[in-house]
Amino acid sequence: MADNTLIALKKDLKDKKEWVNIVLDRFLPRKDEYPKEIHKAMRHTLFAGGKRFRPYLMIRTFLLFSEDVEKISYLAAAIELLHTYSLIQDDLPELDDDDTRRGRQACHVVYGSNIALLASDALLVNAFEILSHAEIDEGLVIKMIKELSLDAGIGGLLAGQMDDIDSEGLDKPDRKRLNSIHNNKTAKLINLSIRFACYASGASEKDLQKMEKVGIKLGMAFQIIDDVLDVEGSAGMMGKTAGKDAMQGKVTFPAVYGIEKSREMAEKHVQDAIKILNSYGHKAELLIMLCEFILTRKF
Amino acid sequence: MADNTLIALKKDLKDKKEWVNIVLDRFLPRKDEYPKEIHKAMRHTLFAGGKRFRPYLMIRTFLLFSEDVEKISYLAAAIELLHTYSLIQDDLPELDDDDTRRGRQACHVVYGSNIALLASDALLVNAFEILSHAEIDEGLVIKMIKELSLDAGIGGLLAGQMDDIDSEGLDKPDRKRLNSIHNNKTAKLINLSIRFACYASGASEKDLQKMEKVGIKLGMAFQIIDDVLDVEGSAGMMGKTAGKDAMQGKVTFPAVYGIEKSREMAEKHVQDAIKILNSYGHKAELLIMLCEFILTRKF
Repeated sequence: MADNTLIALKKDLKDKKEWVNIVLDRFLPRKDEYPKEIHKAMRHTLFAGGKRFRPYLMIRTFLLFSEDVEKISYLAAAIELLHTYSLIQDDLPELDDDDTRRGRQACHVVYGSNIALLASDALLVNAFEILSHAEIDEGLVIKMIKELSLDAGIGGLLAGQMDDIDSEGLDKPDRKRLNSIHNNKTAKLINLSIRFACYASGASEKDLQKMEKVGIKLGMAFQIIDDVLDVEGSAGMMGKTAGKDAMQGKVTFPAVYGIEKSREMAEKHVQDAIKILNSYGHKAELLIMLCEFILTRKF
Repeated sequence: MADNTLIALKKDLKDKKEWVNIVLDRFLPRKDEYPKEIHKAMRHTLFAGGKRFRPYLMIRTFLLFSEDVEKISYLAAAIELLHTYSLIQDDLPELDDDDTRRGRQACHVVYGSNIALLASDALLVNAFEILSHAEIDEGLVIKMIKELSLDAGIGGLLAGQMDDIDSEGLDKPDRKRLNSIHNNKTAKLINLSIRFACYASGASEKDLQKMEKVGIKLGMAFQIIDDVLDVEGSAGMMGKTAGKDAMQGKVTFPAVYGIEKSREMAEKHVQDAIKILNSYGHKAELLIMLCEFILTRKF
């Protein structure tokens, strides 16, 4: 990846991240509003320097087919609120019991498990709330709320959490379970971001299908590299506890396929995604850069 | 309260409860669907013989102004799903750490805290999901989702939980805090049930205001008696651990006002509610009976 290309991507990632942060900051209650402790805890994890990967995908997909990105500000925020809810709960002693997240102490370590739990609930509720305020067609808002609840609920994220609980300490790595965990915990939310962008931009059914394929490929590559970095990375670079997956006997791509084969798989997924994105020409440049960046990222 | 009146009320409560249970049962995934453990845990608390007080209030309010009660089946279910989510979380070790609920072992005692947590999340998500499927005007669905998220979030239930945490072990009972806890944890959801009924039935603004007053009065009476029964009742009758509030140093009506004065207050609220309900004549009979029943209930 050429240096100037990387600079362009990093600048765009930063710009969009700042925009999403402003939207989130304006929508959420201030830190000093009642109940203060919950608001502080919500903001602790929400503004801990997350990459805003899902909102970025949504924004860049939207811009393939439309222009006025303000239209999707609340949709992008909803996805990030939901994602952050799942991170706080993931780290709770009941689930992964992890002390570090996004390079900071996990929410429950700083605020206690009771307040972290309430903060995660609040973020989940806020995801639905902000969607209900989106200034798009009413029928579309309802359709999105239906889809968000499917992917956030027992048809998605929560099934993934259950898979995760069930799979700890399994004797041998299990491909079927790995796919199910990945699909429920990562892929569905990434695809939701892409679908919301397509719905709101008025993309054709054909474009929606193409972009959903990109989402699947990108999501796979992203998760594989995430798992690989958990093995190779350090806590400082990852922003979360490295090596934790192996310690907990989690079903991950390196555990099932080994590191080398995992990287090869990620590369193949990225090439497939780029092939589809090439059909959108110049407009897809930054998404293509993002695909390449996923392979080389160190955190 | 005459015996035959009580029989009529009990029959109606039972009928409506069964109807709500059928709606809930049909909407939720089966126990044997994946992920089984979460579905079992959800149903454990959801179908543990709850009184369906909030749906009942909604149905009876709706019937003051309209007829086709099928129209609000998903609204009634949404309120009960949200209520049950809050019960499971209330009982978690992080919050009240209570072992008994609705006469059964609490969800986390049977299924473990991790699965109880996921089950509570699922119920919260389902509350929004079922609302988004309600067959009423789209604008109204969105309005209801906005209001549900306000009352379920940091503007309602979660603020009440925080109040509860803050108030444990306070030196002296505090009226202001008592009102705030009651308002956030109980009154808002009761009023929401009444508002949803008014919106869906097309009740006038004036009727909405009258019925909201009824909701406030009924909610107060209900909570006061709940607190009194916690002091006087036994676990068997209450379906939850009796005397727990006092043990945890909670701010309750008897702790602030004493038992006798608390009962007097409840009576006054009920009389006020009945005064308003009388203006609806024959149609309000069962609601009036319910008001009287609240004072005499033993569980």
